[in-house]
Amino acid sequence: MSTTPSSKLVIGIDIGGTGTKFGIVNQEGEIIAQDKIPTNSEKPVNIFVDNLFEKIHPLIESNGGIDNFLGIGMGAPNGNIYTGNIEYAANLHWKGIVPIAHLVSEKFGLKTSLTNDANAAAMGEMIYGAAKGMKHFITITLGTGVGSGIVIDGKIVVGNDGFAGELGHTIVRHNGRLHPLTGSKGCLEVYASATGVRQTAIEFLQEDASKHSLLRNYKEAELTSETVYDCAVQGDEIAKKVFDFTGEILGEALANFVMFSSPQAIILFGGLTKAGSFIMTPTKEAMEKNLYQVFKNKVQLVFSNLKESDAAILGASALVF
Amino acid sequence: MSTTPSSKLVIGIDIGGTGTKFGIVNQEGEIIAQDKIPTNSEKPVNIFVDNLFEKIHPLIESNGGIDNFLGIGMGAPNGNIYTGNIEYAANLHWKGIVPIAHLVSEKFGLKTSLTNDANAAAMGEMIYGAAKGMKHFITITLGTGVGSGIVIDGKIVVGNDGFAGELGHTIVRHNGRLHPLTGSKGCLEVYASATGVRQTAIEFLQEDASKHSLLRNYKEAELTSETVYDCAVQGDEIAKKVFDFTGEILGEALANFVMFSSPQAIILFGGLTKAGSFIMTPTKEAMEKNLYQVFKNKVQLVFSNLKESDAAILGASALVF
Repeated sequence: MSTTPSSKLVIGIDIGGTGTKFGIVNQEGEIIAQDKIPTNSEKPVNIFVDNLFEKIHPLIESNGGIDNFLGIGMGAPNGNIYTGNIEYAANLHWKGIVPIAHLVSEKFGLKTSLTNDANAAAMGEMIYGAAKGMKHFITITLGTGVGSGIVIDGKIVVGNDGFAGELGHTIVRHNGRLHPLTGSKGCLEVYASATGVRQTAIEFLQEDASKHSLLRNYKEAELTSETVYDCAVQGDEIAKKVFDFTGEILGEALANFVMFSSPQAIILFGGLTKAGSFIMTPTKEAMEKNLYQVFKNKVQLVFSNLKESDAAILGASALVF
Repeated sequence: MSTTPSSKLVIGIDIGGTGTKFGIVNQEGEIIAQDKIPTNSEKPVNIFVDNLFEKIHPLIESNGGIDNFLGIGMGAPNGNIYTGNIEYAANLHWKGIVPIAHLVSEKFGLKTSLTNDANAAAMGEMIYGAAKGMKHFITITLGTGVGSGIVIDGKIVVGNDGFAGELGHTIVRHNGRLHPLTGSKGCLEVYASATGVRQTAIEFLQEDASKHSLLRNYKEAELTSETVYDCAVQGDEIAKKVFDFTGEILGEALANFVMFSSPQAIILFGGLTKAGSFIMTPTKEAMEKNLYQVFKNKVQLVFSNLKESDAAILGASALVF
């Protein structure tokens, strides 16, 4: 512990449903080293912690050793800032309550803080990204699932129990599409995620079975939000309709969020944002259409300008700084 | 200004779509005098301010005169705490931006603060009512319209522009019932207000035209949430179905609000709560059904124990104290 405070580093970890990304972050908010491992949550959590240690330990050693580190900040689905536990995460196979902050802290010998992955990303946006200087905004991750981080008066909203901001699970279509992991019907996540876009494409191809579409050149397993985007760029009507449908639902949901907390901006990030104006245009239109008068034409709807993994790693590291 | 601070009084005013209630509130939070006038917002706002002064001035005189008053706190639909204006209120006939706090302050010669009527009620609940001691809760007014006040970390959420918490205007049924005043389709207010319950009763009677119902003993103009309740108490099936339908929509909406801010409690007040368990039971069931796992069986759903007008008058007065 002989180094000066300014030279201290933090490890930021972003645990996702599929992969876990991590980086060494300095006090200037620069990621000076980063890597990733598969989350493999179908295996016991101890194996995950061991794998994490195996990859990160050499980075610690090559960056001045353990004494040069202030701690570890982690973001994870259903990560609870109050308890340090991942609790009942639908997108992870670890069941029930997982004391991940405790396990990581024991393994590394470093103070470890946890928050929701989407909240970590929102913190990253606030400190380093599109929401720099804003006190009221919402970030929405459009990835494998739909995550959200809500900032009011410059603070992440965690609510009474640490779980606030599960906007992907809000119901947008009564009795709508089934969420295979939660059993709910018609939540935002089953429509506005990459998985949802794929599902919509499959449904539209079936409904309009006789209509020509470039999407039919792909096997069903190859249909992803990327392939739908590729077809939309080439002018494919069904592909464009998939984004219009997705944007209409997403925009309606965003209007509801605006009428809750009246933010300055909504920042979208995650895989689906690669569809650019194909998703932005119908989303914005539906949002404005559904807003109550006093909110119309006030809220910036923008894509994040941070790399997705960077936002979460930086935000997680901010838990420690 | 010779009285001691502890003897100072405040005027709390609750401007509603139909009537305006007001009271003299002391520092113990007691309403020591109260009265009401019709809002009559189809007439110019100056006439309203004059009427208000005419009724309140004698109360000021009989309570120690103007020097004994700290100020005026007001709640109004779309009342903006930042500007003191009522802005584009759908339930009032005054159009556009009405500088009500300024007008009242000029007329009375007292410092005047304004907030959203539902936020005033939430403040009343927090200081004197069911939410005493809570830091995270939401109040929902089920009256002529549907209002809401959101408290996070012990503070009313007003958002970037002062208009946060318009939950009655959130969309709960895509392309649903038209809101005659806003033009939106399927918002919570058109279903879960007294007006909405009346509309649902009319629709159900038409849809099931051959089915016996006590509701048919009333002329259409007499159908209100009270008459529907009276019939439900007597076991009328259509009347009970009206509340089941209303509760299903309301509960789904409440689930969405919980997944936003994760409150300890949701407090319902307003005319519709007189329907007691007819509205509470289906609402609670739908709320729990639509909640994401981590939120289930955690949130108290209760009726306010304050008189509706008291909550808003007390809350408005708290703006000054």
